[in-house]
Amino acid sequence: MKQNIPLMKDERIDDLLTQDLKIIQSEEVFSFSMDAVLLGRFCSVPIRGNILDLCSGNGVIPLLLSTRTKAQITAVEIQKKLADMAVRNIKMNDLSDQISIIQGDLKQVHTQLGYGRFDLVTVNPPYLPAFSGKLNDNEFIANARHEILCTLEDVISACNKLVKSGGKVGLVHRASRLADIIVLMRQYKIEPKRIRLIHPRIGEEANMVLVEGIRNGKADMHILNPLIVYDKHNQYCDELMEIYYGDATK
Amino acid sequence: MKQNIPLMKDERIDDLLTQDLKIIQSEEVFSFSMDAVLLGRFCSVPIRGNILDLCSGNGVIPLLLSTRTKAQITAVEIQKKLADMAVRNIKMNDLSDQISIIQGDLKQVHTQLGYGRFDLVTVNPPYLPAFSGKLNDNEFIANARHEILCTLEDVISACNKLVKSGGKVGLVHRASRLADIIVLMRQYKIEPKRIRLIHPRIGEEANMVLVEGIRNGKADMHILNPLIVYDKHNQYCDELMEIYYGDATK
Repeated sequence: MKQNIPLMKDERIDDLLTQDLKIIQSEEVFSFSMDAVLLGRFCSVPIRGNILDLCSGNGVIPLLLSTRTKAQITAVEIQKKLADMAVRNIKMNDLSDQISIIQGDLKQVHTQLGYGRFDLVTVNPPYLPAFSGKLNDNEFIANARHEILCTLEDVISACNKLVKSGGKVGLVHRASRLADIIVLMRQYKIEPKRIRLIHPRIGEEANMVLVEGIRNGKADMHILNPLIVYDKHNQYCDELMEIYYGDATK
Repeated sequence: MKQNIPLMKDERIDDLLTQDLKIIQSEEVFSFSMDAVLLGRFCSVPIRGNILDLCSGNGVIPLLLSTRTKAQITAVEIQKKLADMAVRNIKMNDLSDQISIIQGDLKQVHTQLGYGRFDLVTVNPPYLPAFSGKLNDNEFIANARHEILCTLEDVISACNKLVKSGGKVGLVHRASRLADIIVLMRQYKIEPKRIRLIHPRIGEEANMVLVEGIRNGKADMHILNPLIVYDKHNQYCDELMEIYYGDATK
């Protein structure tokens, strides 16, 4: 631990597996998952400039991006308990010079941050429509999973306001929402340019999708090779091992 | 040859590799390619009812579908030389009771066929925008490749008019056009439901995409396992061999 950071009773410190980064997590609130790691690696990251992470949770994506860039990173999280964890995560990793946390609503944050100022906006939004399935009794987990505090359209509309022309938007979501994502991105002038499907195993449907769009980009989609998570022995495939344990500056 | 069918001097008869079907082709005009074979196998085909194939060329997709269904199949092709080949292909394979050819324009054909009458509409449209790249000097090939006689929007608008509510639309196209396809399908009330990406080899980007939509369907996309065409020895993968040489009634 690089600084002496206070922990709440439900919290623990986990290894982020990359360049000695540590992260405070809590099963009562939110634990980062593979989605964040894949998005952190998938994005085309500017070497310098300004990056914004929306729906940032405990700040896992800014932490992961910090190994790849010298850009300034701003993170927006609406839930106070999570934003507080993010603030402590930044301090604990000595990254206060590079990463700043805003507790706020992505629907309004352009009034504070200004229009079109970011080279890259990343977002790992809630995956499920507000009224689909049973809501988790834990409000933090429910808010992270369901579109209660923001819809997919809110997210993409915010990206439209915040990213500069020619800047990029990186998103991870359920594969079943791909049509919604593409239609909304096109509507909000973020042209989807790079897509990567995540399949749990060879021969199975995709369950997740990584999408990168360019503000005012030209229509021309590249669909990358699929990422297969588990091999036939139910072990992570080589590429996943490389993403988790390989060179985190790539 | 099941009937004595006259050939033009540029034409030859090829084996369609499935249930003894034969097909008249011409390098001067149009040869069927893997796209048609993949679409013919990918579609969810009704056992009975009515199927329509747009941009039908020499009728390869109706021939391929005939092995999987007893449905009546109508094919529309705008270019007279190709429609004539399709007519002879149907006769040669003794399929005149099941397949009929219309030489006509898909933008107008609903006036002849009526609205919302088909359980399935298939289409392998021109892949390239009208003014992209050099047009082939051969007008038949140029028309088959470029959006000269119809645009992607014309095609999807025609599907909207011709397919019944709850009916399906099956399409094969360049993967780079996927965003256009999804946006236009949604706009014309054909919800994209099943997608399959075709990658030439493991580790490479997709070059083709198969899309199945449902008229007035609910948003919920299934992205199937990717289809990899060639193995590391540059031979067709097992699934391609099965598609070409396996049970054609599936």
